Amino acid sequence: MIILNVKSRYKTEMIDITAQVNEEIIKCGVKTFAVNIFSPHSTCGVFVCENKDPNIQRDLLKKLHDFFPADGRYAHIGGNGDAHMKATLMGSSVIVPVENARLLLGPWQGLFFADFDGPRDRQAILTPL
Amino acid sequence: MIILNVKSRYKTEMIDITAQVNEEIIKCGVKTFAVNIFSPHSTCGVFVCENKDPNIQRDLLKKLHDFFPADGRYAHIGGNGDAHMKATLMGSSVIVPVENARLLLGPWQGLFFADFDGPRDRQAILTPL
Amino acid sequence: MIILNVKSRYKTEMIDITAQVNEEIIKCGVKTFAVNIFSPHSTCGVFVCENKDPNIQRDLLKKLHDFFPADGRYAHIGGNGDAHMKATLMGSSVIVPVENARLLLGPWQGLFFADFDGPRDRQAILTPL
Repeated sequence: MIILNVKSRYKTEMIDITAQVNEEIIKCGVKTFAVNIFSPHSTCGVFVCENKDPNIQRDLLKKLHDFFPADGRYAHIGGNGDAHMKATLMGSSVIVPVENARLLLGPWQGLFFADFDGPRDRQAILTPL
Repeated sequence: MIILNVKSRYKTEMIDITAQVNEEIIKCGVKTFAVNIFSPHSTCGVFVCENKDPNIQRDLLKKLHDFFPADGRYAHIGGNGDAHMKATLMGSSVIVPVENARLLLGPWQGLFFADFDGPRDRQAILTPL
Repeated sequence: MIILNVKSRYKTEMIDITAQVNEEIIKCGVKTFAVNIFSPHSTCGVFVCENKDPNIQRDLLKKLHDFFPADGRYAHIGGNGDAHMKATLMGSSVIVPVENARLLLGPWQGLFFADFDGPRDRQAILTPL
């Protein structure tokens, strides 16, 4: 198990952790064939998305905001009901294949850690498989 | 492979199976580093979500109902088209890291089995990795 | 790592790859307990869904189109902003348990590779675990 520190700077943000995860995986050696990336926070998600045009992140975060408005009427009192639902929908965990100690992502893909209730110091848990 | 029995009591319900899964994982010993939890039912989902305030479950299930109304106009005839789409969107499978024979969830997270077409006797399939 | 070739014939399409994946898994032998299926394309998703009534696929693709209209106003210029968001939401990766060299899917489930920006020649990456 490897713990990765991730710092969000905004309330809602997608952070590209591809390079950071690759740095850790290279230490695992060539017998790792996949890695699971998990968020232990109930208002963060982990998923793969296009990472060349930042507008796609803007479009996606806007859509999630349309689906779950921050000022919507929710039974949850904490004021971050939207963040919990965004995180649950996007998923807390993703597996990416690994080859030669490197994430086997496509040329247009990046691995993202999304904070829906930042800014905060967060962690991602990597499990080599 | 471990089969977990899960009983839903309502048409739509999120069941916290964290304790039940931990009971099984402790039998696997300390060489297990992650577990995959899979639903073999096409109208059930498995995912991680906040588990301290039940209102978050209410908010999420209400949102899913808004997205996929049970009485919506669907091509599928079975009357449970909404349940199939909710299950597919939320995901049939999730991986959670394991440490010292215990799910490594964050303090606000639980592992949920959601039935969108209950009440029924269901199963979850655990695969230690 | 096994590479699977998948050919989409339409702009938006769910392709049932269950049989194709089972053909590959049988070559892996009985020591495989799960398989990860990953899309290296930022406009494709991989997930489990009902596979007996094709109307469920129609309903789901229509819903995704309602959520992310192809002619919506997006910051992304490429003209396929909807495809990126659909793929990200549905997920690029899924794990399915394996028993006796066969996907352990339920009787109503299939494994789907969805292209949201076809028709194209695509690949899925299988990682036996």
